[in-house]
Amino acid sequence: MINSQAAICVAPNEPLEVDTVTVDGPQTGEVLVEIVASGLCHTDLTALEGINASSVYPLIPGHEGAGRVVEVGNGVTSLVPGDHVIPLYGPECGECSMCRSKRTNLCWTIKPTRDRGVLPNGSPRFRRGQEPIHHFMGTSTLSRYTVVPEIALANIRKDAPLDKVCLFGCGVTTGVGAALAHVREGDAVAVFGLGGIGVNIIQGARIAGASRIIGIDISRNKTELAKIYGMTDLIVPGEEVADPVAAIRDLTGGGVDVAFECTGLLKVMRQSLDCCKPAWGTSVLLGVEPAGAELSFPPVQVRYGKSILGSYFGGIKGRSELPALIDRFMQGEIDIDRQITHRLALRQVNEGFELMRNGVSVRSVVMFE
Amino acid sequence: MINSQAAICVAPNEPLEVDTVTVDGPQTGEVLVEIVASGLCHTDLTALEGINASSVYPLIPGHEGAGRVVEVGNGVTSLVPGDHVIPLYGPECGECSMCRSKRTNLCWTIKPTRDRGVLPNGSPRFRRGQEPIHHFMGTSTLSRYTVVPEIALANIRKDAPLDKVCLFGCGVTTGVGAALAHVREGDAVAVFGLGGIGVNIIQGARIAGASRIIGIDISRNKTELAKIYGMTDLIVPGEEVADPVAAIRDLTGGGVDVAFECTGLLKVMRQSLDCCKPAWGTSVLLGVEPAGAELSFPPVQVRYGKSILGSYFGGIKGRSELPALIDRFMQGEIDIDRQITHRLALRQVNEGFELMRNGVSVRSVVMFE
Repeated sequence: MINSQAAICVAPNEPLEVDTVTVDGPQTGEVLVEIVASGLCHTDLTALEGINASSVYPLIPGHEGAGRVVEVGNGVTSLVPGDHVIPLYGPECGECSMCRSKRTNLCWTIKPTRDRGVLPNGSPRFRRGQEPIHHFMGTSTLSRYTVVPEIALANIRKDAPLDKVCLFGCGVTTGVGAALAHVREGDAVAVFGLGGIGVNIIQGARIAGASRIIGIDISRNKTELAKIYGMTDLIVPGEEVADPVAAIRDLTGGGVDVAFECTGLLKVMRQSLDCCKPAWGTSVLLGVEPAGAELSFPPVQVRYGKSILGSYFGGIKGRSELPALIDRFMQGEIDIDRQITHRLALRQVNEGFELMRNGVSVRSVVMFE
Repeated sequence: MINSQAAICVAPNEPLEVDTVTVDGPQTGEVLVEIVASGLCHTDLTALEGINASSVYPLIPGHEGAGRVVEVGNGVTSLVPGDHVIPLYGPECGECSMCRSKRTNLCWTIKPTRDRGVLPNGSPRFRRGQEPIHHFMGTSTLSRYTVVPEIALANIRKDAPLDKVCLFGCGVTTGVGAALAHVREGDAVAVFGLGGIGVNIIQGARIAGASRIIGIDISRNKTELAKIYGMTDLIVPGEEVADPVAAIRDLTGGGVDVAFECTGLLKVMRQSLDCCKPAWGTSVLLGVEPAGAELSFPPVQVRYGKSILGSYFGGIKGRSELPALIDRFMQGEIDIDRQITHRLALRQVNEGFELMRNGVSVRSVVMFE
């Protein structure tokens, strides 16, 4: 048992309470991790706002962290104290049919308990006084100490700066990975939504050799970084452009090879399909739609060659493939520094989410050291 | 100019008139073909019933033919009289961006005129008396003589029996090609609709090494051939099975790797997505929906790994790739004989479509010799 400073969401739409919790030691197959840094991401915000179906309150948010192993439970064989790790909201057990397939990076081995805010044995490791506090996304990286199943930890090289590579826990991997998986050299690409994921898709598309990268966002606020990362054209719907699909077709002579959707709005999802090149354009959906919402489209678009795909965590298997992506950061191919617009102490965590809500930050990172 | 027996559709929902038309000689880039055999396909029926948007009446239907080159127009370099050919409703000009891409087998070079029932120079080659008769799908293979652009003719080996390989003009290529493109060894596969396309998907899936092939059809009528071709399980919705999706999940332990939709019904399209394995199942849409209809689905299915693709003419480029598929027939890998349930003279063409409407035939082939 160890004391830990943590941000606690007691109930939806209440400010986070920064307080001391106790963290039980790791049980079989579990690992106690000391978090060094944790980025703030929009999915945390959905828990804070009560619109995330896998949230059980009170909970400790955070899913974009990096840290060091403090203690391992029985049966843990792949990690030892001192190892540097990134907690994974999507684990990789290595044994299920999904892990053994090359067609997916999903692993649902511990999804049922994760979605109930507890570890696989059915209980949480956090308490405040006598009150149990739930895990969130199986990671809860907004606690200085957290307990994570071994299969949900990527073991990373020790020379990688934890205060930066924490972003591989979500935004960088999701965006860069999706682009590397779907963009081919010379492609024309559209990216709908230029937030934390969108800018990483843009840098991934540039790395993949895209010839044209069109960003679409209702705000010009965050477009500076998108330009630096490789955006060649910006479309601001509603401002000077009435119909972004027509504008994209004009710019590309008929449509893009790949369109990425990062807003979760059904209308924008449909635009991401409509703006694709008729014979082979691919719409890749990343944005999370409102619960129960359905997207409709004319099947003829697909019968004549378009495709609708999705992407989750960049298509990267967290334990076996993430280290190679981090190598590309260490070699200077992937940028992180420019994305981190704010560094905060844990006590400033509510300000961090406020910066996000107001579209001021690209990424705020909470530092525990 | 040559006289030709042909089946003429004067207006929707009228019996075809078998009569003599005159066929003008081939103009620049065109080829006069003597058709030996032509299969009857559902898309012809849509023209006969007035629900095909690319039909201009009066017209000569037929798009699943095979024959011999009689005469070539100026500028034709790839064909000479005596060559054996299959007319292609989807041409391959070899020069447009689509032809130069490996991502599609579509070529829209002559689509605008084809969809208006004329050849690329804007006029039809058929007349009855003084009345022009329109082409259909650019092929009009239910005329003993027809004129087709050079870029819409596949040059095939002369030892291939024309009275069988005519089916490569549509059904066999569409079905077998789609399966070969999307099914991997060991896959579990679902095929919705066991008509002329569905049975060919089944034989293609078997050739590709599928471990399980589930056929779904509201009628047991045509299931015998599906079984011979490799169907392992049959589901008859409405009869003993209330929910085909649940039945497929039960049979496969969670869903199929690939589902093919060959009915064009929105409800069935949705089932073809719902029955896919969550993490990577692929729904391939082939059936033609009613004009303007839209398919709706929960985007989360795609974000978590499913994909929605289409298939047109089996993904096969007609001139450069179809000959290799015919080789596989000549080597005995692909069966055609069992599909041809009826052979008819042209004067029996209305009976042939009646057999199709009543679900009696798998394929009727009209013989001109």
